[in-house]
Amino acid sequence: MSLVDELRAIVGSGHVLTAPADTAPYLTDWRKRYTGTAQAVVRPAETVQVAAVVRACGAARAPMVPQGGNTGLVGGGTPDAGGQAVVISLQRMNRVRAIDSANDTVTVEAGCVLQRVQDVAREHRRLFPLSLAAEGSATIGGNIATNAGGTQVLRYGNARELVLGLEVVLPSGAVWDGLRGLRKDNTGYDLKQLFIGAEGTLGVITAAALKLFPLPAAQITAFVAVPSLAAAVSLLDRARNAAGPALTAFEVMSDKCLERLARELPQVRLPLPVGQRWFGLVELSDHESEAHAAQVLETLLGAAFEAGEATDAVVARSIAEARSMWAVRESIPEAHARSGGNVKHDIALPVSAIPQFVAETDARLAARFPWIQPSTFGHLGDGNLHYNMGTRDGVPISMAFEHEAEINRVVYDAVAARGGSISAEHGLGQLKRVSIRDYKPAVELQTMRAIKDALDPLGLMNPGKVL
Amino acid sequence: MSLVDELRAIVGSGHVLTAPADTAPYLTDWRKRYTGTAQAVVRPAETVQVAAVVRACGAARAPMVPQGGNTGLVGGGTPDAGGQAVVISLQRMNRVRAIDSANDTVTVEAGCVLQRVQDVAREHRRLFPLSLAAEGSATIGGNIATNAGGTQVLRYGNARELVLGLEVVLPSGAVWDGLRGLRKDNTGYDLKQLFIGAEGTLGVITAAALKLFPLPAAQITAFVAVPSLAAAVSLLDRARNAAGPALTAFEVMSDKCLERLARELPQVRLPLPVGQRWFGLVELSDHESEAHAAQVLETLLGAAFEAGEATDAVVARSIAEARSMWAVRESIPEAHARSGGNVKHDIALPVSAIPQFVAETDARLAARFPWIQPSTFGHLGDGNLHYNMGTRDGVPISMAFEHEAEINRVVYDAVAARGGSISAEHGLGQLKRVSIRDYKPAVELQTMRAIKDALDPLGLMNPGKVL
Repeated sequence: MSLVDELRAIVGSGHVLTAPADTAPYLTDWRKRYTGTAQAVVRPAETVQVAAVVRACGAARAPMVPQGGNTGLVGGGTPDAGGQAVVISLQRMNRVRAIDSANDTVTVEAGCVLQRVQDVAREHRRLFPLSLAAEGSATIGGNIATNAGGTQVLRYGNARELVLGLEVVLPSGAVWDGLRGLRKDNTGYDLKQLFIGAEGTLGVITAAALKLFPLPAAQITAFVAVPSLAAAVSLLDRARNAAGPALTAFEVMSDKCLERLARELPQVRLPLPVGQRWFGLVELSDHESEAHAAQVLETLLGAAFEAGEATDAVVARSIAEARSMWAVRESIPEAHARSGGNVKHDIALPVSAIPQFVAETDARLAARFPWIQPSTFGHLGDGNLHYNMGTRDGVPISMAFEHEAEINRVVYDAVAARGGSISAEHGLGQLKRVSIRDYKPAVELQTMRAIKDALDPLGLMNPGKVL
Repeated sequence: MSLVDELRAIVGSGHVLTAPADTAPYLTDWRKRYTGTAQAVVRPAETVQVAAVVRACGAARAPMVPQGGNTGLVGGGTPDAGGQAVVISLQRMNRVRAIDSANDTVTVEAGCVLQRVQDVAREHRRLFPLSLAAEGSATIGGNIATNAGGTQVLRYGNARELVLGLEVVLPSGAVWDGLRGLRKDNTGYDLKQLFIGAEGTLGVITAAALKLFPLPAAQITAFVAVPSLAAAVSLLDRARNAAGPALTAFEVMSDKCLERLARELPQVRLPLPVGQRWFGLVELSDHESEAHAAQVLETLLGAAFEAGEATDAVVARSIAEARSMWAVRESIPEAHARSGGNVKHDIALPVSAIPQFVAETDARLAARFPWIQPSTFGHLGDGNLHYNMGTRDGVPISMAFEHEAEINRVVYDAVAARGGSISAEHGLGQLKRVSIRDYKPAVELQTMRAIKDALDPLGLMNPGKVL
């Protein structure tokens, strides 16, 4: 029996896709940088089916590529061009298995779309705080496999910190049931941590027990003009001290981002006129009341004005206004995409190093590439910048792409010199698996390899990614 | 050259202890359940010395036992009786390497005493929230190697969640510098997670980059009488919804704990008269003011009284009063120790399962051992109970110890049936390394073993612990 026939026997013929028209959506990544081939796309509906699929692929020595919503940004879920791969799509495994409000946990299958997890939590007056642009199609399994970040990390952490337990099909085909919904469990190595952020190279995540939080009574959002990144860092410090954990988001955007947005997506309303150098988006969540949140925010902004950390600000007076402020922040990538994209860097630095990093690296890039135009935005509260490089007006964007490798090198070297990361929240996938070798200690790469070999001795689990 | 001579050459003769009088304090654990032997206790002062020690021990095939403050509760830092072990004490590596307030991070060496890390943070108007009874002598390296819990986990997580980066000497003697102070870093397997909670079986942690938090403006503490554990769980839910992340601790104690305390340590003042069934200790931390904290707490307690979740309460009116409330909670183990100890269980359960677990397991134990007397207390907010078993008045405590294995079996079976953990915050060490085999899936134990073999193929790193 061929592998494809075996897969059909396991999941049913209707869920083994082999026709090019059927498999195509699974073979190209979201940013359309990578297209691979596969002998089949298989869509199991249950954990035991995933285990049988993994065993069958293992026996046939077929590489396996786990895939969720296929919204990753580094090609981690796309097969290579070898034609032997089997894409294991988790999308049919989308049940909410259990919710326990008194324990603040929900247990969901890997194929659950992130937004659905958020919705289920809210229906039980709980918050599942992971939030990112692709939440309408990204799956929780993919979020966990890539340790997704997003806009609420400042308060709630990355996906990693939201996972209490996992169910994983190991490369051997064995099912590990580690779905414990416990806040404390010191009984040996915390294996789930290995699978979180491994981008499917150590096994297939099939379900997760997730942390929930009490739903805040109110959220309040302000859009603030700040004179410099240094002022933004001071304002962040002030906000953390004044609001503590009530500060749930602190984003920044440069004037160039908003200019591009105004040009490409004029329907997106800007809360403040372009013309300031930087803008911040500050969100407070409050367990008391809207009025209390407003009072904390007003005191904070008052002090920030006095200290010269803010030069203008507008506070959202309704949920609609808050959404419209967030829309500004979240439309930036689309505005860039519409004008041909740019050379993207998803970097993390110590927050304290950011102002100097941006000033020096902007200058270094401008000295070497006089046509370059930075469009910087990101999650300042986490030290995570999307430090993206386009071109000045009148210079075709192709110029930036022609020099992509050189630009990357300048940026990554500057990041490494300050103890930063060249992939803050997107992962390595195919995109950065070679670059990382220049920046990670050899002993770290060797230890990663030792773990990979120990868990996946045949090297069949998502080969060509991460390592 | 003998191994001991080599060690002397590496760290200086004064820091290689071999005389029984010198080594004794390192060879018996804090609870005095385990005493081992060693060919030497070595006290390196720098990471390069630790690396050289590990290489020398590896070459001589000598087992190595990393040790911090030697305050562990499960014998994880005590050598076996074989006499070949080298205890590597990290106590001399106690420098604060760097503090970065704007990034909310501090980098410390493993031998730093926990209290010193707290103090350094406070000097910079920051909070390092890990807090536990042994904080005056426990080291941060030991806290991380055991993934310590304590009283603030509800809000800030276990030690694991407070670690951003580690420096580790691997079993090969290579130094891994993973001291990144970043909130986001998705560049491959998150190796630090392996060493956190591994109890020294995968390498020697020599330094850590830790998360800091803004210092709250005020803390307020209440001691509350609650009619039942179910009422305590309802009150916890109410407190989380009302205060959100301002709720920084939620502890419970049974009447029997306070009765014992009153008898053994009469100098410890009880805030409320004994006679209620359960007591809760509720702490709020506030970034606004003492007055605001008091107002949130009063509203909360008012609603709790109305709902029948609380029958009496006293709010600390000063820092001294709050300390005296915490002293009640923290003196319980000593009160038990003074009356001969008891059979201890450090268990975790879903919070929602706790009332029924305690009712049923109390009953099951009483049916089998009519002389038994539970003394239950713990971190209800984390689902973590110290579910300890003594004897009724007039029955010698030796009776409990004679039946320790049977009592453990009843308790662990009940814990496992509800998806709980038999070691919430203390680890496995020597004490539970055999028991765990009955409760963990075989595939999980096998995967732990595969990782151990991959990183420590000679099996020299803290053998006889965890696995």
